[in-house]
This record gives sequence, C-alpha cells and structure tokens, in this order.
Amino acid sequence: MLDFWFTENHTDDYKVSWRLNKVLYREQTPYQEIAIVEAPELGRALLLDNVVQTTTRFEFIYHEMIAHVPLMIHPQPERVLIIGGGDGGAAREILKHPSVKSVDLVEIDQRVIEVCRQWLPEISGALSSSKMNLFYTDGLKYIQEYHSHYDVVLVDCTDPSGPSLDLFTRNFYQDVFKALKEDGLMVSQTGSPTFSSHFREAVRSMGKVFPLTRPYLTCEPSYIAGFWSFTVGSKKYDLANIDPDRMLNIHTKYYTPEIHQAAFVLPKYIEHLLYK
Amino acid sequence: MLDFWFTENHTDDYKVSWRLNKVLYREQTPYQEIAIVEAPELGRALLLDNVVQTTTRFEFIYHEMIAHVPLMIHPQPERVLIIGGGDGGAAREILKHPSVKSVDLVEIDQRVIEVCRQWLPEISGALSSSKMNLFYTDGLKYIQEYHSHYDVVLVDCTDPSGPSLDLFTRNFYQDVFKALKEDGLMVSQTGSPTFSSHFREAVRSMGKVFPLTRPYLTCEPSYIAGFWSFTVGSKKYDLANIDPDRMLNIHTKYYTPEIHQAAFVLPKYIEHLLYK
Repeated sequence: MLDFWFTENHTDDYKVSWRLNKVLYREQTPYQEIAIVEAPELGRALLLDNVVQTTTRFEFIYHEMIAHVPLMIHPQPERVLIIGGGDGGAAREILKHPSVKSVDLVEIDQRVIEVCRQWLPEISGALSSSKMNLFYTDGLKYIQEYHSHYDVVLVDCTDPSGPSLDLFTRNFYQDVFKALKEDGLMVSQTGSPTFSSHFREAVRSMGKVFPLTRPYLTCEPSYIAGFWSFTVGSKKYDLANIDPDRMLNIHTKYYTPEIHQAAFVLPKYIEHLLYK
Repeated sequence: MLDFWFTENHTDDYKVSWRLNKVLYREQTPYQEIAIVEAPELGRALLLDNVVQTTTRFEFIYHEMIAHVPLMIHPQPERVLIIGGGDGGAAREILKHPSVKSVDLVEIDQRVIEVCRQWLPEISGALSSSKMNLFYTDGLKYIQEYHSHYDVVLVDCTDPSGPSLDLFTRNFYQDVFKALKEDGLMVSQTGSPTFSSHFREAVRSMGKVFPLTRPYLTCEPSYIAGFWSFTVGSKKYDLANIDPDRMLNIHTKYYTPEIHQAAFVLPKYIEHLLYK
C-alpha cells in the first residue's frame, strides 16, 4: 500500500504527520493554496498553505468555542460579524442562537467559501441561511466602515502570517472596538500559548483597547499540541456572568455553561506568561 | 547541518516528530529501551520504547496534575504509594505536602531510576529524600501484599502495552482498593480520551470498584494531541471538596485550586464517550 502522509511544520523543530487516504482537491488562489484531503484520523480536512484549518472529525471543538462563549456573554446578540470563517462552522454555531438576526461574514478569499461549500457541506451549510450576508473583501478595510454597529465580532482567521498578520494588532482591535455597539464584545482565536509568541502579544494588545480582556482555552487535536487559545475583549459584559438556560435548546458536542467557566481558568504558567 | 529527528507514532495514522540536538544515552533493559535525548522544543527527554515519557520543558504539567489533585482531595495524606513514576517527578510534587510522612515507589525497571538520577536530576532529585522508599519489583504483585495501608496510591505508568497493560484492569483496581485505608483514594493516568480506547475502559473499570470515580483533564504538548486524562477513584472523599489554603505555601507552575475544579469539567463529547 502507498505510504502517503501529509506533514505540517508546527515550528522549525516540531512537526506532525497525518496519514492520507486521498487528496480530493487542490487550488492555488491569489491568496493561498487551498486543499481538501481525507485522512483516517481527521476525516475530511481543509488545508490552507499546508496548515490544517478545519476537519470533519474535530471542527466542533473550535467552532463551538469561538462562537458560544462570546454569544453567551452577550445577553441579546442580534448583529454578528465574522472576519474570516469561510468554512462556515462558526456561522453554523452562531445561528443556533435565536436572538441572532443577521450574520455578516467577511472572507478575503472567495474560493475558500466555494471550495468549502462543495467539499465540506456539513460545515458550510449554514452559509446558505437567509440571515447570512457574505462579503468578499479584506476584513481590515471592511471593519473601518462601521461605527457602533455590531453586538459581537468574531475573528476566525488563520494564524498570523500573510493576510492574517494585521488581524492581531492593536490598530485592528481599535477598529473593532469602534465598530461594536457600546455594550459589544469581540473574540479572536489567538493560537498556541506554548509554541507561539503571538498569543501574549494579542492578549496584551487587546487589553490596551478593551476594558475587559481575558483568554480562554481549549484543546484541539488537529492543531499544534497543548492548549489552544481564544481571547475575548468586552466593553461592558462580564465574561463569566452567563445565563445557562439559554443553552437548553441548543445542541452542542463540546460547549456547556460549565465548560464556559472552566475554559477561563488558566494554568499558572499561562497566567505568568501574560501578566508577569 | 544534520537534519536529525525523533518520530513517535501516536497511532497507525498519526505521528509526531521532534528535532533532536543529540542522543545522550541509550540502553536496552530486560523490560524496555531507555533513551535520553535533547530536543529544542522539549529540553531533555526520557523515552521508553520510543515514546516520550517526560521532558524538562513540560514535565511540570503532568507531575503536578497527577500528584496535587489526589493529595488535595485527601485531607491529611500521610502514606503514599507510587506505582511506576521512576523519573521521580510525581514524588517531588507529593513531598511538597507537609502532611506526607512516607512515599513508597515501586518501579519494575531499576535502570529507569538510575538513568533518570544521572541525566534528569531536576526531576529525579526527590528520590533521594529520606521519606522515599524505593522498591524494584512488579507493582501488580507489590500491591497484593498490602491491606488498609495507604492514604493515596498513584499509578504513574506508561500507556497500556507490555508491562503496563494489567495496570488498567478491574482486578488491579480491586487490589488497590484493598491496599487503601477506608478513606483512601487512587489516581491513574488514563491516556488520551480521543485516540485511545483504554481511557473509557479504565474509567468504567475503576467505577465498578470505587464509589466515587471521575476523570479529569489536562493538556500536555509532548504527549498525543488533545486532552490527556487522569482518573480518580475515591472511597470516601468528594473529589471537588478541597481546602485551597493548603496550597498557599506550595510552589507550582500549573496546578491551582481553581485548576483543580476546572479539570473535572468535561467537554460534552467526553462525557458522552463515558456515560452514554
């Protein structure tokens, strides 16, 4: 049998390999190389520039944690913006909240959305909802046009390199702050606290802009090992003060109100990394 | 430069590679192959049969979580047994609790202890404490000799294969139950909930023996990706009812009383794996 592996370099000195059944699709766009592969341990996976973005086996972990945490912190989220998130997974989770009236999604690379619609329908299906508005443009420019407009902004982007680099800066967080209503909040994926210095920088930069800023953690087997972080910046609402009953009729596989609280408890070495 | 990597097969379809600076030591014992290597992302590492066991960079995560959780659940732990744990890291954490009078450590392979004493002194140093008693024998047989003797038993072993396989069975848990005092408790590392079926089997088997059984989670970057589990079996003490003040004078880098509570909160899919 052909011994056929995909290898991702997590750092210069650490790499992970997943056996592949097949490469279903490949395309070079003006922004990046898109690939859809099938792997015994991942299911069907979306790769961007040779980095695993989402997999049918594990996507629920990341998508539930990037969506339900901020949506539960806001008591009545109606207007939501996703920057990135072209696979549609975050949108699917957001649309489970009945208060949500519209979700705008800004994806710089239209081909990501089209490829996910074709090859990952169980993730991307929500993109066809009548509540969704898709914009194919640069999130950095898009956000500058809005003022006191959104309840929640999610930054669901690739790790900081190439087109994503500026999505982890103080300038960008200031633009998001301005685009949020006076009680709005944002969340961004902020990568590996262990293997990337961007985590610390992103949390500190967001903390200079938002009065309430805190990272929270999950563990996603298809990403770099150890904890994976998200960071919330909130103008008004306390991050832990949620109404558990709002999840009663929402089906999840990872998130619970108890997980919400537990995810904000940081191991001491991660606290020190940030605040010492 | 020589491109020099160590590769560990986590499953048949998933492997991780760490760049090596050098292999410091190798030895084949009657039980296993022991190696000490140096890697940029791990520091100095102990490998047994080509599996990373402990690393100077990340060992605090595993050792604090296997030791402080059970030691904090027991209100006055005095007599502790470690089965396995030849690197000495669990012993080091246990000895931070002033109530502990003696720690017996049963390691089947004496060479593990000797190699760790030579090459990993920052982990193994506690093995020289006057409170430590080392036994070079099979933990399965050792435990059968004791009755109502220990306050806490820790099973700090390799993953279930070869000499460790029987340490994950109901028969073994029954022997541990018998060796514990009437208010005693045990903890075992129970592997990856995501990539190993032994997790579910171990939790269920322990649950047939102990009135209170619950897994708890951490995330250790040098082990298989995603969560890593431990499971506590307790005769009497509630797993969440701890006195945080007991940690006030104990230095840790991972564990806190808040982490203790958070670690027992399971994502929904892991709950379902166990109880549905």
